[in-house]
Amino acid sequence: MRTHTDYLWFHTQKRQEFVRITDDVRQIVQASGVRDGMALVSAMHITAGVYVNDWESGLIEDFQVWLEQLAPAGLDYRHHQTGEDNADAHLKRTIMGHQVMVPITNGDLDLGPWEQIFYAEFDGRRRKRVIVKVMGVA
Amino acid sequence: MRTHTDYLWFHTQKRQEFVRITDDVRQIVQASGVRDGMALVSAMHITAGVYVNDWESGLIEDFQVWLEQLAPAGLDYRHHQTGEDNADAHLKRTIMGHQVMVPITNGDLDLGPWEQIFYAEFDGRRRKRVIVKVMGVA
Amino acid sequence: MRTHTDYLWFHTQKRQEFVRITDDVRQIVQASGVRDGMALVSAMHITAGVYVNDWESGLIEDFQVWLEQLAPAGLDYRHHQTGEDNADAHLKRTIMGHQVMVPITNGDLDLGPWEQIFYAEFDGRRRKRVIVKVMGVA
Repeated sequence: MRTHTDYLWFHTQKRQEFVRITDDVRQIVQASGVRDGMALVSAMHITAGVYVNDWESGLIEDFQVWLEQLAPAGLDYRHHQTGEDNADAHLKRTIMGHQVMVPITNGDLDLGPWEQIFYAEFDGRRRKRVIVKVMGVA
Repeated sequence: MRTHTDYLWFHTQKRQEFVRITDDVRQIVQASGVRDGMALVSAMHITAGVYVNDWESGLIEDFQVWLEQLAPAGLDYRHHQTGEDNADAHLKRTIMGHQVMVPITNGDLDLGPWEQIFYAEFDGRRRKRVIVKVMGVA
Repeated sequence: MRTHTDYLWFHTQKRQEFVRITDDVRQIVQASGVRDGMALVSAMHITAGVYVNDWESGLIEDFQVWLEQLAPAGLDYRHHQTGEDNADAHLKRTIMGHQVMVPITNGDLDLGPWEQIFYAEFDGRRRKRVIVKVMGVA
């Protein structure tokens, strides 16, 4: 059995930004030598998420508009009494999820035809990490 | 260490349909020979989900009514400019989640008394897949 | 390869209560002897969740207020025709998620600076369980 760990770093220009990371995850999986198993891809910061969905710019905008409706920025959140202003980012990332497990078969990501892995930043403009932990057999 | 992979196929009659798959997952786990470990159960299409909750028809209707409120069909989504009409299905599956990890103990699913695994289809009437990847010790 | 399974028990005083369990999960991981791998932390009851987010009481209140807006208690849910009165708890736990995978590196939880693991009870005042299943190499 084999394990392999790597980290992806992000420093987005905008506060909210969705970044496709399928190829980055694939590279780490291939470097791991694992031919059959799973990779955990998990945001290490609590105002960012990781999710699987379509690589289509219109849908990505739909997600962002929708999240703004479900968890609006700028409300009078209790969390802001600490000096923070990002409570909505914590809520938005909860809707999207903060991690995915990616199956690995024959040395590659075993994804459906339209599945793409995304990093969803909701409070960016600073350095943040995603862990990729691969586990399986060579 | 042992890994085992199988796929469940779905072709629902209705556009939206929730299908209990606990027994299908159990069969795959038993065929794998894994006695202790985990099974990843993950939708391979991005308008379907996999979740764990109650096997009670009233609650399943409650879920469907609720999802329609949170992510209504028929709105003027940007995704629909591509010719698609299923943006709401992408959003709904995000609320429900698209995958679960099922613990395996003593060769069986280690579920609580009411936990049942469901496939949630939001844009059906065509063939779709769920991957079941089992990993653990014999 | 090594696996290790333990269960955390909860019996909250209030119907809704969020309990930090990071240290409990860490103890189980350390008892497992696994130095590199993953731990599944999963609610075994379908009106409770497990999630990762900030250990800040204001934000926890924000989550609770927000969930009440998205999935209110006391509505005329179909599930209540069975005699239950907790349909909202099923919906709330779906928003929060019912399980997380925690990466393990160098024998400890590999969490970001603010990541804390929580048990989210939405229909408490009775005994409930969370499974912690550890898998990896010693």
